[in-house]
Amino acid sequence: MLKTGRGANAPAFLVMDVIAAANAAAAALPAGSPGILRMEVGQPSTGAPRGAAEAAIRALQAGAPMGYTEALGLASLRSRISRHYAEKYGADIPARRIAVTVGASGAFPLAFLAAFDPGDRIAMAAPFYPPYANILTGLGMHPVLLPCDASTRFQPTLAMLERLDPLPDGLIIASPCNPAGTMLSPEELAAIAAWCHANGVRLISDEIYHGLSYGMAESTAAAFSDSAVVVNSFSKYFSMTGWRIGWLVLPEDLLRPVECLAQNLFISAPHVAQVAAEAAFDCTDELEANKAAYARNRDLLLAGLPAAGLDRLAAADGAFYLWADVSALTNDSVDFAARMLAEAGIAATPGVDFDRERGRRFLRLSYCGAEASMAEAPDRLRRWLGR
Amino acid sequence: MLKTGRGANAPAFLVMDVIAAANAAAAALPAGSPGILRMEVGQPSTGAPRGAAEAAIRALQAGAPMGYTEALGLASLRSRISRHYAEKYGADIPARRIAVTVGASGAFPLAFLAAFDPGDRIAMAAPFYPPYANILTGLGMHPVLLPCDASTRFQPTLAMLERLDPLPDGLIIASPCNPAGTMLSPEELAAIAAWCHANGVRLISDEIYHGLSYGMAESTAAAFSDSAVVVNSFSKYFSMTGWRIGWLVLPEDLLRPVECLAQNLFISAPHVAQVAAEAAFDCTDELEANKAAYARNRDLLLAGLPAAGLDRLAAADGAFYLWADVSALTNDSVDFAARMLAEAGIAATPGVDFDRERGRRFLRLSYCGAEASMAEAPDRLRRWLGR
Repeated sequence: MLKTGRGANAPAFLVMDVIAAANAAAAALPAGSPGILRMEVGQPSTGAPRGAAEAAIRALQAGAPMGYTEALGLASLRSRISRHYAEKYGADIPARRIAVTVGASGAFPLAFLAAFDPGDRIAMAAPFYPPYANILTGLGMHPVLLPCDASTRFQPTLAMLERLDPLPDGLIIASPCNPAGTMLSPEELAAIAAWCHANGVRLISDEIYHGLSYGMAESTAAAFSDSAVVVNSFSKYFSMTGWRIGWLVLPEDLLRPVECLAQNLFISAPHVAQVAAEAAFDCTDELEANKAAYARNRDLLLAGLPAAGLDRLAAADGAFYLWADVSALTNDSVDFAARMLAEAGIAATPGVDFDRERGRRFLRLSYCGAEASMAEAPDRLRRWLGR
Repeated sequence: MLKTGRGANAPAFLVMDVIAAANAAAAALPAGSPGILRMEVGQPSTGAPRGAAEAAIRALQAGAPMGYTEALGLASLRSRISRHYAEKYGADIPARRIAVTVGASGAFPLAFLAAFDPGDRIAMAAPFYPPYANILTGLGMHPVLLPCDASTRFQPTLAMLERLDPLPDGLIIASPCNPAGTMLSPEELAAIAAWCHANGVRLISDEIYHGLSYGMAESTAAAFSDSAVVVNSFSKYFSMTGWRIGWLVLPEDLLRPVECLAQNLFISAPHVAQVAAEAAFDCTDELEANKAAYARNRDLLLAGLPAAGLDRLAAADGAFYLWADVSALTNDSVDFAARMLAEAGIAATPGVDFDRERGRRFLRLSYCGAEASMAEAPDRLRRWLGR
């Protein structure tokens, strides 16, 4: 038996196992029985907007060879993303500061390797998106968790950062965040960005859920800091998960390092996805209709879940997740989720995926699925919980 | 100014800069002048085979949502790759041992992180594909170079491996290899695989150029070793570079580790590329026609280059590269390649990208480009070199 690397101990991203269990439960149902309500998935069911898919079809029908692009992406797509920053945020981000990546997943290793060294300490709120910690650990870097709760909308505060001793080398923030669905206000984001810049802490701002907020203003860290790295993607608002296409906004000092790292680690992002992504910016009507569907789903759950027994929900500012404190019902969310799937036919993600200890008392409910499921979920839950 | 990580010092993959210089030279030519002969590119100009592109078009026209696939890839594609091993090599590789990846580029970090630790020493022949070393270094691992020359077809030998003290933790081999285009015989590969297994050295066999050989038999390390990792891709024989789709054959002990790493680092490979790749296996006629074109190009160069002054070429066993010893003409291949581009209108890659010191006396000539270019190149070279 040969040795394996410590990477062989990487924890699973559990939600993928939950999805497999829900698939299996759905496949095992007798014909005609009510289906499984899918509230575990973190991806829209809608697929790419029609205009994006059609741009890909046109390019393929024309016989475009779809070879490697430049490592940082097609010039036209980088320009289009630059324009997006001007139009959406009023921020002047030149195209040369945009790196097109293999999804947000491909963006994180580039950002981490360019900005940090093995042994470096990178802070983040808990609960958090599991791959943040798992990628950092794989690269020999150390996550520093900032336990957050409803009192700060599950977001880190300046006070938490100032208490860290020694200060961390980096900070990852996400607004809206996964799993809690909560946001930082523009003022809070600006203050954190300024504090990081002043204290030599590299800020990594995950803005992958931008475009999906339900009242609070969205702001980008790129508008507040010249040293921050912004991660974004076409997977969520643009509904293009499986296309594996995202981007980075880079500070000047990381431009060439990320270009060299990308040449070696990725060569380029998928070409056909770059073509489709550029067209996705012109699909506003369809994308806003998707968002309106999430908003209706959110309203259905916020109206129905409390009476069904899930009455401690994090502020549902954005993304398409509800972070439910189920401590009144269980202290073992893995068992609770398994029973909820088997007995009530509702798939949800146990919180331990996002917060190893405290997550035993939380569930993540995703509302990017079918409206009929969201309408039915509160009733099923109410009956199952005997309310 | 914030600190950057040591990853910020990653060397460029220079061929990408050479491509940019050739593009600029081509764009600056007056209308009607003879064009630049492109012998620097490492990708086919042909694009995906028609049947692969059409499968992608059909799926997109049908409105397939193209969401994330399972982390290890679509079951149907993994089965098709398994069948490929039975048909091509007579090897029994169950689909569960296949991991679909974001190109070979995406396969290497998964394999390295699963098999090795920071500080581990991984041997490879020099000259070598630059990202091997650059990815390893980025992960805190150490490349151990085995200087090879024409006497061993630029491939490592058992004797070289046995001389290493201490033994390395891993060995990367490639047959056919980039840049030299040379191969190991099945007997040599089998002996190296057996030696690695017996000595606890994890073998990583890069088989990305399989399908493109011109006489020597191709064999897979997966047929000779239960501990070896095989890397392959749809980029070369299947002509699908920009689709970013490849695969790993994994030993049993690395299956779950690579699945967990892939969930965290990639989520999944691009969905539409997986659909196209599966169809590419049924495009043999078109792919064999591509290969026949490379073979004609190879014949043109092997017939014409010696009289033109490039008479010390590595055995052109496979891939689509000639590794030319130009020490009789220069000891500065970077300058030589720049002058050859400016004065003869021929773009080629200086050897330093692949072998930092000895590469000053080598050029890599790629013959996957247009047949007319390969026909013209010897004449241009002959005139430029004054033969």
